[in-house]
Amino acid sequence: MDFNLSPELTELQARIRRFVADEVIPLERDPRCGAHGPDEALREELIGRARRAGLLSPHVAPAYGGLGLSHFGRSIAFEEAGYSLLGPVALNVFAPDEGNMHLLEEVATPAQKEQWLRPLAAGEIRSCFCMTEPAPGAGSDPSMLQTTATPDGDDYVISGRKWFITGADGARLAIIMAMVPGVGATMFLSDMAAPGIVLERNMDTLDRCFPGGHGVVRFDGLRVPASAILGELGQGFRYAQVRLSPARLTHCMRWLGAARRAHDIATDYARQRQAFGQAIGRHEGVGFMLADNEMDLHVSRLTILHCASVLDAGHLALHESSRAKVIVSEAVWRVADRCVQILGGQGTTSETAVARIFADMRAFRIYDGPSEVHRWSLAKHILRGVKPHAAAGGHA
Amino acid sequence: MDFNLSPELTELQARIRRFVADEVIPLERDPRCGAHGPDEALREELIGRARRAGLLSPHVAPAYGGLGLSHFGRSIAFEEAGYSLLGPVALNVFAPDEGNMHLLEEVATPAQKEQWLRPLAAGEIRSCFCMTEPAPGAGSDPSMLQTTATPDGDDYVISGRKWFITGADGARLAIIMAMVPGVGATMFLSDMAAPGIVLERNMDTLDRCFPGGHGVVRFDGLRVPASAILGELGQGFRYAQVRLSPARLTHCMRWLGAARRAHDIATDYARQRQAFGQAIGRHEGVGFMLADNEMDLHVSRLTILHCASVLDAGHLALHESSRAKVIVSEAVWRVADRCVQILGGQGTTSETAVARIFADMRAFRIYDGPSEVHRWSLAKHILRGVKPHAAAGGHA
Amino acid sequence: MDFNLSPELTELQARIRRFVADEVIPLERDPRCGAHGPDEALREELIGRARRAGLLSPHVAPAYGGLGLSHFGRSIAFEEAGYSLLGPVALNVFAPDEGNMHLLEEVATPAQKEQWLRPLAAGEIRSCFCMTEPAPGAGSDPSMLQTTATPDGDDYVISGRKWFITGADGARLAIIMAMVPGVGATMFLSDMAAPGIVLERNMDTLDRCFPGGHGVVRFDGLRVPASAILGELGQGFRYAQVRLSPARLTHCMRWLGAARRAHDIATDYARQRQAFGQAIGRHEGVGFMLADNEMDLHVSRLTILHCASVLDAGHLALHESSRAKVIVSEAVWRVADRCVQILGGQGTTSETAVARIFADMRAFRIYDGPSEVHRWSLAKHILRGVKPHAAAGGHA
Amino acid sequence: MDFNLSPELTELQARIRRFVADEVIPLERDPRCGAHGPDEALREELIGRARRAGLLSPHVAPAYGGLGLSHFGRSIAFEEAGYSLLGPVALNVFAPDEGNMHLLEEVATPAQKEQWLRPLAAGEIRSCFCMTEPAPGAGSDPSMLQTTATPDGDDYVISGRKWFITGADGARLAIIMAMVPGVGATMFLSDMAAPGIVLERNMDTLDRCFPGGHGVVRFDGLRVPASAILGELGQGFRYAQVRLSPARLTHCMRWLGAARRAHDIATDYARQRQAFGQAIGRHEGVGFMLADNEMDLHVSRLTILHCASVLDAGHLALHESSRAKVIVSEAVWRVADRCVQILGGQGTTSETAVARIFADMRAFRIYDGPSEVHRWSLAKHILRGVKPHAAAGGHA
Repeated sequence: MDFNLSPELTELQARIRRFVADEVIPLERDPRCGAHGPDEALREELIGRARRAGLLSPHVAPAYGGLGLSHFGRSIAFEEAGYSLLGPVALNVFAPDEGNMHLLEEVATPAQKEQWLRPLAAGEIRSCFCMTEPAPGAGSDPSMLQTTATPDGDDYVISGRKWFITGADGARLAIIMAMVPGVGATMFLSDMAAPGIVLERNMDTLDRCFPGGHGVVRFDGLRVPASAILGELGQGFRYAQVRLSPARLTHCMRWLGAARRAHDIATDYARQRQAFGQAIGRHEGVGFMLADNEMDLHVSRLTILHCASVLDAGHLALHESSRAKVIVSEAVWRVADRCVQILGGQGTTSETAVARIFADMRAFRIYDGPSEVHRWSLAKHILRGVKPHAAAGGHA
Repeated sequence: MDFNLSPELTELQARIRRFVADEVIPLERDPRCGAHGPDEALREELIGRARRAGLLSPHVAPAYGGLGLSHFGRSIAFEEAGYSLLGPVALNVFAPDEGNMHLLEEVATPAQKEQWLRPLAAGEIRSCFCMTEPAPGAGSDPSMLQTTATPDGDDYVISGRKWFITGADGARLAIIMAMVPGVGATMFLSDMAAPGIVLERNMDTLDRCFPGGHGVVRFDGLRVPASAILGELGQGFRYAQVRLSPARLTHCMRWLGAARRAHDIATDYARQRQAFGQAIGRHEGVGFMLADNEMDLHVSRLTILHCASVLDAGHLALHESSRAKVIVSEAVWRVADRCVQILGGQGTTSETAVARIFADMRAFRIYDGPSEVHRWSLAKHILRGVKPHAAAGGHA
Repeated sequence: MDFNLSPELTELQARIRRFVADEVIPLERDPRCGAHGPDEALREELIGRARRAGLLSPHVAPAYGGLGLSHFGRSIAFEEAGYSLLGPVALNVFAPDEGNMHLLEEVATPAQKEQWLRPLAAGEIRSCFCMTEPAPGAGSDPSMLQTTATPDGDDYVISGRKWFITGADGARLAIIMAMVPGVGATMFLSDMAAPGIVLERNMDTLDRCFPGGHGVVRFDGLRVPASAILGELGQGFRYAQVRLSPARLTHCMRWLGAARRAHDIATDYARQRQAFGQAIGRHEGVGFMLADNEMDLHVSRLTILHCASVLDAGHLALHESSRAKVIVSEAVWRVADRCVQILGGQGTTSETAVARIFADMRAFRIYDGPSEVHRWSLAKHILRGVKPHAAAGGHA
Repeated sequence: MDFNLSPELTELQARIRRFVADEVIPLERDPRCGAHGPDEALREELIGRARRAGLLSPHVAPAYGGLGLSHFGRSIAFEEAGYSLLGPVALNVFAPDEGNMHLLEEVATPAQKEQWLRPLAAGEIRSCFCMTEPAPGAGSDPSMLQTTATPDGDDYVISGRKWFITGADGARLAIIMAMVPGVGATMFLSDMAAPGIVLERNMDTLDRCFPGGHGVVRFDGLRVPASAILGELGQGFRYAQVRLSPARLTHCMRWLGAARRAHDIATDYARQRQAFGQAIGRHEGVGFMLADNEMDLHVSRLTILHCASVLDAGHLALHESSRAKVIVSEAVWRVADRCVQILGGQGTTSETAVARIFADMRAFRIYDGPSEVHRWSLAKHILRGVKPHAAAGGHA
């Protein structure tokens, strides 16, 4: 076992750190950051900067314009990107596009990759992942899927309703999960401009960092050809899992960066702000919060790196990524909450980035499975005697 | 000891509960609820409804148009008002006006009461309390007060800068804490329209429930006559304490109502939403959160009622109200956080009132003293052997 | 509502406080306190002292030699008794005898009362309550009861095995829960010396405060007459509930006293012990623990007093006592744990009473239902819309 | 970075696991495990078994009979040893001897090593580390050292009083921290049988796993030659740090093993014990505790391995080991507490190893610095901008 980074990753880490500091953070107060995330003009400016810095889509294979980073490498890069809420947008590693690119790379046909992965990786278009449904449809329990894709000649006709569809507004590509009667859940690709796709409305949410916000999307007899099937018929849930473990973990990476940012801001404040005769950080009530922050950041990072190693060893890592999701989402939340507290009144305002990180982060404890669903799943594994992976082999 | 309510309070409780349900909650989605709280038109409509229902300013003496409720009675009434974030606005018991009226009633001269208390109690005007200052001024540590009031003939000339001044935008009355050199901290009353008061800007904060939001106010040689002194010269910190204990506690009352609302919404959802084969509330992961909510609400209510009784017995209750602030602000926050979690994705949206309660409530753990300052103060009392009051006497 | 004690209770509180300080605490290091609790000689000495002080069996009706305290009065008295782990033994209000006396008073025939309640109330004999069984029998889930009582002529023949039978070793009376085939769970009274009762062994447990420790008891064809039935045939579970709510609550009362003791010891230590330049209590890391202790003690006390009032109003209070059990058992445990931490190394030794309180208290989170069973039960009530009682009526 | 074990360590891990299962656990109920830890006869039997298995003193250099494990290797080995509370005794890696051997290896002269390290590594003798003093002496704050070593000709005369001296009863070697006036804190080696060393008494503590328990030791004019100085005069505090970081971490390793044992026992129980219609582990209230256990064990292990890597890279690792101490001691404590809770009543008895692990582990949150001292120290580092090490370089 070895806890050191390769020289290449160390160098990439430093480069992204500088890029975020110099090129991204100055844009955080740009008025184009709206209630539904950065608008397209701002996104294009950010993408342009990352392209010039050679940092665009680092998770995608070089053949499609990326840096071909392993999961481990992504852990390093995405934490740095997450240091600004705009960083993942700039590097083109924000959700859901980053996970969608990963899925396309794993499952799509060469033609589908040319059509969708290439422009996605170049940051030219955005995408959305249409899975979650309003009650009584698929939420934490995907088996409750209500949207159907009915064969009709060589086509499929898709009907149903989805919500919490991140990035729907402005997306060009939709990946749609639907039930093919008698066959099973299946994924389809469609242009969002196709007739039969209606963006009913954008939802009003606490968070603001996702380009396009979160929409309600209706499929009103959307007709797609068989060539729009992603992978194989009936394999929708399996592909969801292929997408899910890495996607959960990349959320962890990005939010770790955001939490580290909040901690840095709170630390500076605790050094400078005086109260009751000394810098507030010298009061144990504040100093202990800083110490707890550092510990939470440390275990989050170790957990992410470990899970990434398991993924890199070729495992599906459902157990490990569930575990990482709970550990990290709860730890970084504690960090963000403590930083608000340390900053006092200012922690609840836009005077610093902390309030925005805090509000945006809350949803992270819910999406890609709330802690409760993961704990339930972990418990089932434990009771069955399943041992999680160390990394390439054995268990720990 | 007796845990029953009088028939009068039981009846008042029921009346406010109906009023909030029928007259206030329907206005929650009114577009006049903006980023800086309900606007004046909406406030006037709410005030009008409460006036017609005979529920306006229940904490103020009947001579000034209120119901003359004791602190205990306020505990019952304000919890009910807090069930909607607009409820305290309607009943004219929102912060800082409610505490300001209390302070005026305790300390102001008859003439000052006529001038300011009477229209405040009628809901005709609003007020603000100008105490908190940007660094290096007075925050959690009030002794760092920087704003000065310099005698000049029979007048005082006030200079300084304040922020987090809730309700400044639109307020008619300002209560200003300033240091009179050689004399000590002193409170002054001023019309906000007076020359020398500048509202620099409104702050961008997580919360939205306070009419007028939170402003940055500058005093640029504001001239006030000696008759504008509230109470006595040099007694500013003492009056701040007179205001503080009850004001802390009324925050607790209102937020308890808001937390109960969130819990009711989450309970309904947990009954109806199905996942993994049953209503989600039947899963212990959710059911236990409901149980914890009920326990947190219960201890919050008992703690408030106890502290109110100590205040009603004539004690200053600094220890008891510090204790209540920490217990209640942390307990109701846990409730709000759990309710977001139970609602899943919807908990982070405006589909229900929960997300708004959650975001607005975060600041409650900070204002009127963060938990850390209260714990520090409680510790000092404990080490000195100070025993908190049972109620009218003895200790418990 | 009123948070003051009557003069009578205030006086009783003071009397017990003095008695415990003067007559009980000096015996805590008596070598007759062994691994299985105080032995009979020590118990008799303690009982004698309480008798002379007029404080024996305060919960029992005067007709049987007690003070006839209400549940509310017991809350005051038992907290004071619990200030020493030997205090409940002295006042004859330790478990399970205190709950057994309560049950006999509620359910037993006059003859049974003369035979068993009178000598129990006088402290002349001890009793045990034989309900819990080894797997696969009745534990947290009483419906799994395996012990049977088979009718045989006018008698019943009882067979089965029980464990965690507190006080079995040395008890004169056994109250036995057994299943009468075709009829239901039923309670029986028996002399422990009867043939067919075997005390297999005493269990080795973390706690040491219960006279007689905890035993494993086997019923090997124990023959009892119909007159040994406690109350009515088939009503065993109902009587268990009659016993349960108050018994749960009296545990809370006694452990609250123990936690207050630990807090007092830790506070003294925090005042005196110096480290890093000042008394350790002046370090916020320690001072905040003292503040948290006080808050936990405060909400525990309020919760107990509230639940006692509901019981005194004639309600069964299953919901309220479940809630109180969770709130208090978890709060006082936090107090005990913090006190160990404050005392540092000494907290883990017999240098003070804290280590003993800590180790003994751990089981309190389990007996009379672990927190998990109570949370589950509370959740079911909440989902069904059951409102807990305020006190005599209404809800809060 | 790489999370895999070398084949050699994987093999050693498996060997120790089997050894503990086959040779150590069967002795856990041996009556020679007393209130002050395993007695000498039992210790010798355990040592003999480990010697025959080739597993004795794996942390010591081969030249002195050990396996020469790195800190990283110790992490693997000591966790396995800790799976039984007797395992560290068997492998001769229990505290304080393991840390004392490490210190001697780092600092002692060749002659001192021959005299003391060799027989210690062979398990022939035991040792103690005499540092902690009763108030007002050195506890968490070592600068309060009261014991003095006054030069007298070529000798030093040591006077003072120490307590919590683990293993004093039965130890042959004492390492003594004393203040040489005008020079500074200095360490001395002495035979415990020397005149002037008095074992006043053994302390009565919650734990039972340390051979010899914890003693109060008085130095009554103990005379030692200059050759008894360990290392250099006045370097006592520096050597304490050399000993401290690794010693803190080996505690973490051993207790991680013990926590894993408790978790395994609780998991088995949760699979088998039925209540309310299913195995209790299927109830989320229990299942979630198992999930939390696994997460706590996981982050503990990662944190230990990381810190060990920093030590192996040659750093003093005071920051990293403080952090590891807090993270691990609190995490494994939560695990032990949950396991007691899952086992219900049995968790508080000697029916399983859990109650013993629970009671013994409590002190781990205190010795080698309570969490509060470490959080304070971490906060100071953070405020000064100190970055902890990744491993061989850089920071993470």
